[in-house]
Amino acid sequence: MKKGVFITVEGPEGAGKTTIIEMLADELEREGHRVLKTREPGGIEIAEQIRKVILDKSNTAMDPRTEALLYAAARRQHLVEKVKPALESGMIVICDRFIDSSLAYQGYARGLGIEEVFSINRFAIEGMMPELTFYFDIEPELGFKRINQHKGREVNRLDLETMEFHHKVREGYLLLMKLFPERIYKIDASRTIEEVCEESKAKVKQLLEMYR
Amino acid sequence: MKKGVFITVEGPEGAGKTTIIEMLADELEREGHRVLKTREPGGIEIAEQIRKVILDKSNTAMDPRTEALLYAAARRQHLVEKVKPALESGMIVICDRFIDSSLAYQGYARGLGIEEVFSINRFAIEGMMPELTFYFDIEPELGFKRINQHKGREVNRLDLETMEFHHKVREGYLLLMKLFPERIYKIDASRTIEEVCEESKAKVKQLLEMYR
Repeated sequence: MKKGVFITVEGPEGAGKTTIIEMLADELEREGHRVLKTREPGGIEIAEQIRKVILDKSNTAMDPRTEALLYAAARRQHLVEKVKPALESGMIVICDRFIDSSLAYQGYARGLGIEEVFSINRFAIEGMMPELTFYFDIEPELGFKRINQHKGREVNRLDLETMEFHHKVREGYLLLMKLFPERIYKIDASRTIEEVCEESKAKVKQLLEMYR
Repeated sequence: MKKGVFITVEGPEGAGKTTIIEMLADELEREGHRVLKTREPGGIEIAEQIRKVILDKSNTAMDPRTEALLYAAARRQHLVEKVKPALESGMIVICDRFIDSSLAYQGYARGLGIEEVFSINRFAIEGMMPELTFYFDIEPELGFKRINQHKGREVNRLDLETMEFHHKVREGYLLLMKLFPERIYKIDASRTIEEVCEESKAKVKQLLEMYR
């Protein structure tokens, strides 16, 4: 492979993203591929500084468009410093969340508009779209149940209040699949982790065949 | 006036922007207008934090697109927290540098592309374009001479090295005038400060007539 392959993984917490990225990367490395697992801001100093501004709890006055521009800025720097060099050296890059998170959460669920948020991200990624994006689809209620089982606590009032928002996020992702049918591959993440992992591996192998 | 008037002032250092903004604001206030003089980040906490990331000298790896997105983010927050409320209360807002600085410096002189940089700024300002933009035009050599006289030092090698860049910035502004002929008003800033100020006042009064 002269050029690397860029894969992103999307979906809510509780869908099993982290576990499956681990299993996928292990498998690919066993087969001799060099793999970079990453997520924004990914230890990139400038991107970390930008994230700090976004997550600073005293910044309650932050406008949603300011936030979207800051996410795009952190994305750009992470891409340039970490993802791009890895791809140029021929690695497979698996990134936990990327442009579609901004489109689904801010563009769709927060109502800024998918095309609007895409316009600033288009500027940020300068054509470096992933070859393949997994969307781990799961009913928000089931996702929350899994997180809560994991943390050993009951679903609380706050979880339920945000449920409507998480349903909107899911709607957003399903809409993105229609906009990018060749890039986004939906996986039913309500099944066992083994089943989800098998399907993910099969899909990645199919993609890699195309790059032989 | 039900709604305020948004005026921006552009041009290189040494063109006399600061002095003329002061004189213009004083004159307008004498005539009974409420005036807000501002410049980004303008004391807005979130915008100041973003500027700190941009100006942090240890961030040498900052990509030009990351920088452009951060400027747009700071612009958004300053606009939402400071400019917009003032305009809504019917004030005249005079802002030292705004969108055209990004277009001329980063879009044109740094080569990112005017339309590219405009796309993220369009997202940031959400239609809040100035009614009037002054471009204080001056030969870069003359601008530098003025700054240096002011500081009491000679033009040095570093100034001359960047001269080519400042000529590009000027080219960028002259191009923007062609793109926005109704909004951008060029003032020959090589004349005396009194002459420049008279012409600026006359132009603002002409604009205010339209809002009666």
